[in-house]
This record gives sequence, C-alpha cells and structure tokens, in this order.
Amino acid sequence: MPRAWTLAARPQGAPKPTDFALIDVPAHDLAPGEIRVRNLWLSVDPYMRGRMNDVKSYVPPFQLGEPMSGGAVGEVVESRDPGLREGDLVQHMSGWRDEAVLPAAEAHKLPDLPVEPQAFLGQFGMPGMTAYFGLLDVAAAKEGDVVFVSAAAGAVGSTVVQIAKARGMTVIGSAGGADKAAYVRELGADAVIDYKSVGSVVRALAAEAPGGIDVYFDNVGGDHLDAAFAAARSHARFAICGMIDIYNDVKPTELRYLARVIGARITVRGFIVSDYLPRAGEFYRDMAGWLAQGRLKRDETVREGLEATPQAFMDLFTGGNTGKMLVKL
Amino acid sequence: MPRAWTLAARPQGAPKPTDFALIDVPAHDLAPGEIRVRNLWLSVDPYMRGRMNDVKSYVPPFQLGEPMSGGAVGEVVESRDPGLREGDLVQHMSGWRDEAVLPAAEAHKLPDLPVEPQAFLGQFGMPGMTAYFGLLDVAAAKEGDVVFVSAAAGAVGSTVVQIAKARGMTVIGSAGGADKAAYVRELGADAVIDYKSVGSVVRALAAEAPGGIDVYFDNVGGDHLDAAFAAARSHARFAICGMIDIYNDVKPTELRYLARVIGARITVRGFIVSDYLPRAGEFYRDMAGWLAQGRLKRDETVREGLEATPQAFMDLFTGGNTGKMLVKL
Repeated sequence: MPRAWTLAARPQGAPKPTDFALIDVPAHDLAPGEIRVRNLWLSVDPYMRGRMNDVKSYVPPFQLGEPMSGGAVGEVVESRDPGLREGDLVQHMSGWRDEAVLPAAEAHKLPDLPVEPQAFLGQFGMPGMTAYFGLLDVAAAKEGDVVFVSAAAGAVGSTVVQIAKARGMTVIGSAGGADKAAYVRELGADAVIDYKSVGSVVRALAAEAPGGIDVYFDNVGGDHLDAAFAAARSHARFAICGMIDIYNDVKPTELRYLARVIGARITVRGFIVSDYLPRAGEFYRDMAGWLAQGRLKRDETVREGLEATPQAFMDLFTGGNTGKMLVKL
Repeated sequence: MPRAWTLAARPQGAPKPTDFALIDVPAHDLAPGEIRVRNLWLSVDPYMRGRMNDVKSYVPPFQLGEPMSGGAVGEVVESRDPGLREGDLVQHMSGWRDEAVLPAAEAHKLPDLPVEPQAFLGQFGMPGMTAYFGLLDVAAAKEGDVVFVSAAAGAVGSTVVQIAKARGMTVIGSAGGADKAAYVRELGADAVIDYKSVGSVVRALAAEAPGGIDVYFDNVGGDHLDAAFAAARSHARFAICGMIDIYNDVKPTELRYLARVIGARITVRGFIVSDYLPRAGEFYRDMAGWLAQGRLKRDETVREGLEATPQAFMDLFTGGNTGKMLVKL
C-alpha cells in the first residue's frame, strides 16, 4: 500500500523524529484528468520548516495527520489525461510519499536537457531557479560585481557561485567546515569563508572583501546578513532568499550594522521563486548554454528510502548536506 | 568676534554638554568668490550624531576643535561674488556659528515661495525633500496605499503624513506622547500610535492596520521597523531614512519579524536625500501647489541664541521637539 509522511506534531524549535509519522494511504482509482506517479526522487528543502508552523505564510501550513507535500520526480504509471502517458518522467509537488495521485495539470514533464532526472529537483529545478533569478533579477548582479553568498555549498548557493562566475563576477562564498569550503573553491569561488573556523563573519568578510561587496545573496540571515551590511558598498543590493538560521529559532535576529542600509543606500529585497515560474524559459535557456560549455558542476547528498526522509530534512539544519539533499526511492 | 561650536570630544553614546565647546573664530577678509553671511537660523538634525563619530560614513566626520557644519539660513552682509549681494537671504551648510565666510557657490538663494525663511531648513528644505522623495520615489507610494510612518511629529515625518494624505493614501503615524499624537492627527493621519503608551508597537500596528501596510517610512528603526516587518503586505516597500534609535546606541537592533521580508517579498531601501538634489525642482513645484491649496501645516520648536545649539541638538534624541528643531540667532 502507498505510504506517506505526515506531520504528527508541530515542531517546537528544531524538528525531531517524533514530529513525523509514516502512514498508509489507501490507493484509489483515477478520476479523469488524474495521473498516478511512482516517485523516484524526493526533495527536502529548508522552506518546508516554515510550513510546519501554524502561521500565515506564503505557502499554507502542513495539516497535522495529512501527507506533507514537496518537490518530487517520478514516473507516470497510470494516466487518465491525454497529455501524459505511462513512462513519462514528471516533476510535481506531491512528495514525502512513494506513490502519488494528482491532477495531470499539477505535473510537468521534465525538460529535454542532458542531465539526470534528479537534477530537476536541484540545479535545474527550484533551487537553481532561485539562484538564477535571485542573483540576476532580484539583486541585479552584473559583470564586475563583488558577490557574497552564504551557504555556498548548498543547492542554491552552489549554483549562485557558478552563475556569478559564468557572468564575470568576483565571488566570496561562505560554508561550514573545511570540506564544504574546498568544494566551494572548486566551484570557482574567488574566496571562501569557513564560518565554523573564523571567529567573526564580519571580520572575515571585511578581510576577504576589503573594497566591499556589491551584492549579497542571503541563504542564512543572522551574522552573515550583518556582515553583509557592514561590508556593503554604496548602492549594494541584497537578495534575501532564505534565513535557515531562524526557521528553527525563536530568538530575534541581532544586527549591529543595519544602519548602514541608509549611508550605503542598500536595497534589500525578499523574493519567492515561484513568482518567477512564468520566466522559467530564460533560466532553462541560459542553464543549457552553461551546461554545454561545461561550466556547471553539481553535488548531491543522497539518502536511500522513504523511511530516511525526515532525517534527511532534519540534517539540512545541521549542515548535513553538500549540494542538493535528496531522497532516492 | 564671530563664534562657532566645535566638537570638544567624541560622544560616547548620548552626547553631553562637555562634548561641545564654543570658540572665537577670527574674522578675515573675503577672497574673490566668497561671501560673508550673518546666520539667522541654524538647523540641528539627527544625522549630525553620525558625524560626531570617527567612522567612515556618507558624510565625513566632524574634526575635533574645528567648527561643525550644518544647515543654516542667513543674510549676505558682504559679497565678492557677482551672483549674490548684500541683503540676499541664502541657505548653506556653514551652521553651528553666528557668522560664516564661504564660497558663494556653496550658498543658495532662497526659492521664491511665500513662506518664512526658516521653512527652508524644514518642510521646504532637506527634511521636506527627504519626506517627498523617500515616500514617492524610494518607497514608490501611490494612491490607495496604507502608509506607516514613525516619528510622525518630527520635521520629516510630519511632512510625510501631509504628502501622503495629499496623494490619497491612508496614513498611520507613530509619535511619543499625547501632545504629539494629537498633533499628528491634526496633520490628517487616519490613525496614530502613541508609542510611549502602547505596550508593543507590533501589536498596536497590527490593531490599527488589520489588513497590513504597503509602505513604511522609517525614521527610527528598532521596534517600529520590526512592527512594519510584522504588518507588511505582499510587495511592501520600506524607505529607510533614519534610525534615531541607534545613533546613540551600541546595542544591536533586535528583529523578530525580519524573515517576513521573504514571504511578503518586501523591498527595504536606504537613501540619502542629497542624492535627490538634482531633482529639487519637482519637490518645489509640488510643494508650492500643496501650499497654495492650504494643505501644508508645519510646526517648529525654536530655541534662542547660539549658546542654545548643543542642547537643542541633544533634545532631538529625547523627543524634545515637535516639528522642526531650530535655533534662532
């Protein structure tokens, strides 16, 4: 019988195993327009933490006892829609389960690009699109800019580093630990800050970017954001993509350099990648070009089996992944 | 002999009387192109606190023992420049003194508008221009928007309230104390928060703007900024003009609702009014129109005599003024 992960309890602070429960989902016949998908790959992403709270947000909260949702790639095994047929590989949002029944309109055939299917959950999917539009549109980064990106070994950050280099920018990445720092350097970053080994991100960034930064791509908030305020050049632009630091945290963010937003005329913009879906064509076109030029590397951290999903998710918040965190079914 | 205020010591935290010293400035003959101005009105403004620290900022720090500068309006008493003559009223930046010698190029004849000369240090000067461009350009506020403005009884805030009403917006102002709150209501604000009497600005703003805010004009930072993050509607714009709260403060700003910048796609922009000087014509044109329609009120807090200048400045940080704080010589 198909199985799905549900939220058993709303996490207080960091999620723990007992906040999740695996349930059986009785199979049912397809209605017209529906498809049945055998999931091959599941995505776990930091933003899901927000959906575990019962507060108003840009995506509705998960309901207790209901199957959770999230990105997934799978194979159509049954279809009652003329647009999709058995054997098609699709991406959709009915993740956290091994088999999904959903309207065909909510599934998308994988674009025709020479990459493995799971890449469409990472560099060629939402995280990649987040990197692309956050850097080039929200922060309006351009050739010659000095770009600082936090969580630069992660799914989004690692793509930011590579797109920035492909477009002729100077990149300073931050990552936690020597292995990740080495990986970020391998991706082409001009400088890397291992935030676990430097005492102060503010001082480390000032040392790596003595002339300041033009762009900050924020995946973590907290002290990294403060360091970016401290280092910002005049008319710097910050794209705020995530604040992994505070998803699990009830403490306020403390900023000592916030007032520089005035003197340096900084623009700080939050964004949601789904607002850019109508422009996905631009993303695929540029990514295909960079892929053909051999400019794109990607890394995955793969966990095996549906049972491993909650732990894979929890490990996102303790630095357990390099590149995209995936669950392979 | 002309006298001028100098910085005797760099203030630690809040400035105190002994941080300032009044010195004699020997008069000297004018060089070609120079003018001598008898100052009539001096401006004291919160931004001057930043210049008292020895740190890199958008304006250079005051030098110890040198006359401080700041906005002033005065009468030309001697001129060696063909563009200005005795009796002309000018505005310039050689304030904090009773008589100034400066290049004529650094003085501007007062525009031909039916207001008193000191208005060009307030509503018709930098503070007014800050309100105008901050609201309409930086925050791109438009008819129908719900606007929250802090320090709404101050020189900048009171003008923001009136411009917003003239342009058909809903305005929520915050001010400290019953008198100032009454004044802000008199200016036309739809709702007023007396931040000294409400326990929490976050809750007070949520109550006054149950549907949220589109624009926040920030003059104070701190809990007001946090309240704006909490109340922001989707695609809200924040113009960050000042953070009076932290000029004297070494504590970091604590923000509990900062992460809403992502979900609500908020844009936060800092700005410096001097960047807008080339567009001053737009400001004078619209202000003249509103003035003719009887839409503009202004209030001044006037202190008498050069000796009163440091105390007038210090009182800015303890809420000692309603409207523009001025020193009359």
